[in-house]
Amino acid sequence: MRINRIDHLALAVDSIDAALPFFTEVLGLQVTNTDVEEGQGVVVAFLPVGDSEIELIEPVHDDSGVARFLRGRGPGMHHICLEVDDMDAALERLKTHEVRLIDDQPYIGTGGRRIVFIHPKAAHGVLVELYEKLPGGNGSANGRSRFAGRLPGRDELRANLDELRQAMVARGRVMAAGTRGFWGGLRRGRNP
Amino acid sequence: MRINRIDHLALAVDSIDAALPFFTEVLGLQVTNTDVEEGQGVVVAFLPVGDSEIELIEPVHDDSGVARFLRGRGPGMHHICLEVDDMDAALERLKTHEVRLIDDQPYIGTGGRRIVFIHPKAAHGVLVELYEKLPGGNGSANGRSRFAGRLPGRDELRANLDELRQAMVARGRVMAAGTRGFWGGLRRGRNP
Repeated sequence: MRINRIDHLALAVDSIDAALPFFTEVLGLQVTNTDVEEGQGVVVAFLPVGDSEIELIEPVHDDSGVARFLRGRGPGMHHICLEVDDMDAALERLKTHEVRLIDDQPYIGTGGRRIVFIHPKAAHGVLVELYEKLPGGNGSANGRSRFAGRLPGRDELRANLDELRQAMVARGRVMAAGTRGFWGGLRRGRNP
Repeated sequence: MRINRIDHLALAVDSIDAALPFFTEVLGLQVTNTDVEEGQGVVVAFLPVGDSEIELIEPVHDDSGVARFLRGRGPGMHHICLEVDDMDAALERLKTHEVRLIDDQPYIGTGGRRIVFIHPKAAHGVLVELYEKLPGGNGSANGRSRFAGRLPGRDELRANLDELRQAMVARGRVMAAGTRGFWGGLRRGRNP
């Protein structure tokens, strides 16, 4: 098992719109892609830096892990993603060393890639994502660009992020309605 | 001004010796260099990952910024270092946007490179180091390897880190003796 490179460094921010001027106007980076991660309840924007990317992640739901991270620690570095050449070998190595993972099983990301998160308690306080490089893959965890290789302007980007947020909220409406009572009750101390 | 790549991601740890098995035995990375950073009061170890490096940083003095970081937040991601092609242009850009820096002036690192740290309050909670690539430089902020290209064994590495720590403590003895009363008094509330 070999780690090829840092695929991306993920930074948790309260608002991608508000954070972008620092990364684009001051540092001169550019957004090449945006996405949603339904499971994490976040919208994300990717900014390439050399052979890696910076990923800005913004929570859409208050109950997401990233929202809790922001409430507890404020914005900052959230996780690092390392690309491995052989996920089967990586999983075997993690098992041999009894390394604690966030989930028991790898989950399937863009393009069928397998992804695991190593628990920060097993990695000296760092949340480490391992993702597998697929043969013929484009060498990036975030897949094909939503903007077909063009660089989106600021207005286009803002509109695109709004659309992604609204779509996630709309898809989550049933679940939100179903869980609101439970969570609301929990907060007021009425549930066990 | 252009950012070429992520030079390194620095992780604050209580003990490099204790952290190494995760990074070497589990992730399969290797230490290629160690160093001291007197100004920060830390010893460091560099582990290449693709075109970047992971830097483990361990405080030697209790009063260093990294020691305070560890006491406040525990081990984890400490700063990211980005390589810029033109430090003059970078400084101009930072000035134009009134970006808050840790120090007023760049400081001079390995090989005469200029380095600035952007304050986390100006960078959405991320401590960002910018360092300049010099013409003909080896493309790495950490300079020439202490091990002349060989990979040190675990015992050699432990002995080397001990030597670096002890040398720093010896050099700092006078200052430590001079400041101990002040800090001790401050902690007990006797100084203003």
